[in-house]
Amino acid sequence: MEHSGRVLLELFLMFAGGKLLAEIFERLRQPGVLGELLAGVMLGPSLLSLVHTNEFTLGMAEIGAVFLLFTVGLETKPRDLFEVGWTAIAVAVLGVALPFILGLWYMKVGGHSTVESIFVGAAMVATSVGITARVLGDLGALSTRAARVILAAAVLDDILGLLVLAVVSSLSTGQIHYVQLLTVAAEAVVFSLLMIFFGSKIIGRFQPQVEKLRAQNSAFILSIILCLGLSLGSVYIGMAAIVGAFLSGLALADHSERWKLHENAHPLSEFLAPFFFVILGVQVNVRTFVTPGLIGMASIICVLAIVGKLVGCGLGCLRLGFKDALRVGVGMVPRGEVGLIVAGVGLTLHTISDAVYSIVLVMSIVTTLVAPPFLRMVMPIPSAAGSYSAGDPPPGESPPADTHPEL
Amino acid sequence: MEHSGRVLLELFLMFAGGKLLAEIFERLRQPGVLGELLAGVMLGPSLLSLVHTNEFTLGMAEIGAVFLLFTVGLETKPRDLFEVGWTAIAVAVLGVALPFILGLWYMKVGGHSTVESIFVGAAMVATSVGITARVLGDLGALSTRAARVILAAAVLDDILGLLVLAVVSSLSTGQIHYVQLLTVAAEAVVFSLLMIFFGSKIIGRFQPQVEKLRAQNSAFILSIILCLGLSLGSVYIGMAAIVGAFLSGLALADHSERWKLHENAHPLSEFLAPFFFVILGVQVNVRTFVTPGLIGMASIICVLAIVGKLVGCGLGCLRLGFKDALRVGVGMVPRGEVGLIVAGVGLTLHTISDAVYSIVLVMSIVTTLVAPPFLRMVMPIPSAAGSYSAGDPPPGESPPADTHPEL
Repeated sequence: MEHSGRVLLELFLMFAGGKLLAEIFERLRQPGVLGELLAGVMLGPSLLSLVHTNEFTLGMAEIGAVFLLFTVGLETKPRDLFEVGWTAIAVAVLGVALPFILGLWYMKVGGHSTVESIFVGAAMVATSVGITARVLGDLGALSTRAARVILAAAVLDDILGLLVLAVVSSLSTGQIHYVQLLTVAAEAVVFSLLMIFFGSKIIGRFQPQVEKLRAQNSAFILSIILCLGLSLGSVYIGMAAIVGAFLSGLALADHSERWKLHENAHPLSEFLAPFFFVILGVQVNVRTFVTPGLIGMASIICVLAIVGKLVGCGLGCLRLGFKDALRVGVGMVPRGEVGLIVAGVGLTLHTISDAVYSIVLVMSIVTTLVAPPFLRMVMPIPSAAGSYSAGDPPPGESPPADTHPEL
Repeated sequence: MEHSGRVLLELFLMFAGGKLLAEIFERLRQPGVLGELLAGVMLGPSLLSLVHTNEFTLGMAEIGAVFLLFTVGLETKPRDLFEVGWTAIAVAVLGVALPFILGLWYMKVGGHSTVESIFVGAAMVATSVGITARVLGDLGALSTRAARVILAAAVLDDILGLLVLAVVSSLSTGQIHYVQLLTVAAEAVVFSLLMIFFGSKIIGRFQPQVEKLRAQNSAFILSIILCLGLSLGSVYIGMAAIVGAFLSGLALADHSERWKLHENAHPLSEFLAPFFFVILGVQVNVRTFVTPGLIGMASIICVLAIVGKLVGCGLGCLRLGFKDALRVGVGMVPRGEVGLIVAGVGLTLHTISDAVYSIVLVMSIVTTLVAPPFLRMVMPIPSAAGSYSAGDPPPGESPPADTHPEL
């Protein structure tokens, strides 16, 4: 009974608090996701101390991110990614190289050791696509060319980030295991390409079997199993779970309309995703910002992290025109939790100091908070977005879904 | 990364395992929920030991039960409950009294102490409506008269169970706090009546404000907040969270069509509810069944628990005819986790022995496993239920929900 009450209290505070601030932010013409992040900061241990990270809340955050990216994948047809393939590769490679070089250079100039400098550079590399995907989804802009480039580049980015992490981890332990490194890279590349190129066709093969199942809404249930299974698979390979979730959504995208997958998955991600953003906020320690002596250095790292992605990714897709280049550049800025994982490894291996860890933390937070408003500013806004849509169905119209034939 | 992988592994095993066995059971013309329970037993510590109860899995089970009953509430109009009000009261009171008397009598005759006998009687009182609600939902039978009586009686049952638990807890500590007892009872009754009679009207008042909100799908988001808030509220009063969840669904039922609440909430409960049933199974210790010397006594308690509810609840609604009386009686048989809570309190207070606790455990498991197949047998089966429905929409028809205007 005690556990039951605590679980419900945490869920209520996170969901209601996140949605309250999201509504306020929407009214201020700011992205709702920023409200959810700040709700987390306020509820977290550094301010109100009402919500903490524990097995349960971290688990909810994990599922939230997984279903968010699954839903985004469902809205992305594989051929949309093929079309932007080469551009996405250029965006990912330049967007990884430039921040890494800038971070490494600034740290070395400031007199830090090579290994520590490499770690900071590495922490500036990886894009956290969750924030961007959410803002794009809220704006109804997931089908724009810029959004497709961002999503494709984010998958590649995760593969590159995985390699960088593997290299720096082995650097700090003294030697690089080339075979192991190549295996990890090959697994990640093969897994991703397989899903992008053949996933949809393989699923199409099983269509008759799926529709013969007894369970109600069986295609949706199988799609959840696929999503959880591939998320788990990508964790085993060493990638983020959300990459597998996105790829599973992608493989199912062509079948989404027939099997009503999106309209089933969307409420799931609507309920679960806020926990991911609120918990991101809960993990922010406000005191990090006021560490004296670090503000100057942290500010410069933040600027370099933003400029690095903006210019690197922008250059990678400049041929799409300045506007799209700017959109892609801004969309790739958030580092979210990925930079923290790299810095966390460095801290555990004692290759970076507490002060440098704090700087990486500030960089992750600032890039995450800064991106949504700018992204909202530069993206084209479709006319229907932002207005209330679910409450006013055309009068007299009663779609078959309302009668719940499957119950 | 490690936590991420474990969370996803547990989710995958529970969901995929539960759904696999559910499919097998459906093909054997047995209720799917029984498959999910058995998947839990197999995955749990007493057999494969792949899934354990921990903060995260118990939390998922909790949310699963909450959203299951929320969805059931959304399908139940308050006036449906008024209509069966007096019948439900008779069903609940007789269904509580008879099992209690039978359990108390058998234990006393067997030479057990009065307090221990009262505890066993009390553990045989409370109905766990989750199992029945799920079977009724799967059969598409939630709108039948028998289902309405069961749901109304289950709410009353929880209030009565709460009182019985309060009485027996104070019994074992030596004295009964009448004032406290009355307060708890009054709170529970007022809370439930308020929601049943005025909830829908109060929500109707706020309709214009709800539809003016900026957030997309804001009515659904508010309904989740209401559901979590009332679940939390009923835990604070001392009732089960699912009572609050059911009452919040009930209050929203009249607005469900306009705000598309059911079609949004249904996928949530479809994803989350299996965790509740699988975790129920995980908590079953198979070794309990083979404790020598207890089998005879446990069998008799099981028979008394089943007969008590069947006859007690059946008598309460005999005026609806024998068939409906049988349906209601069978539907009220499962004890699920509620009996275990009572027995757990007794164990903690050292008023019941380990052996008697095991017997209560077996009784809870047996009543839970036995009810679904019988319920399926006695309920009228609508022609559409059980067949695949989501995969074959009428050709050429494209309901507006498929175009996702809210994204």
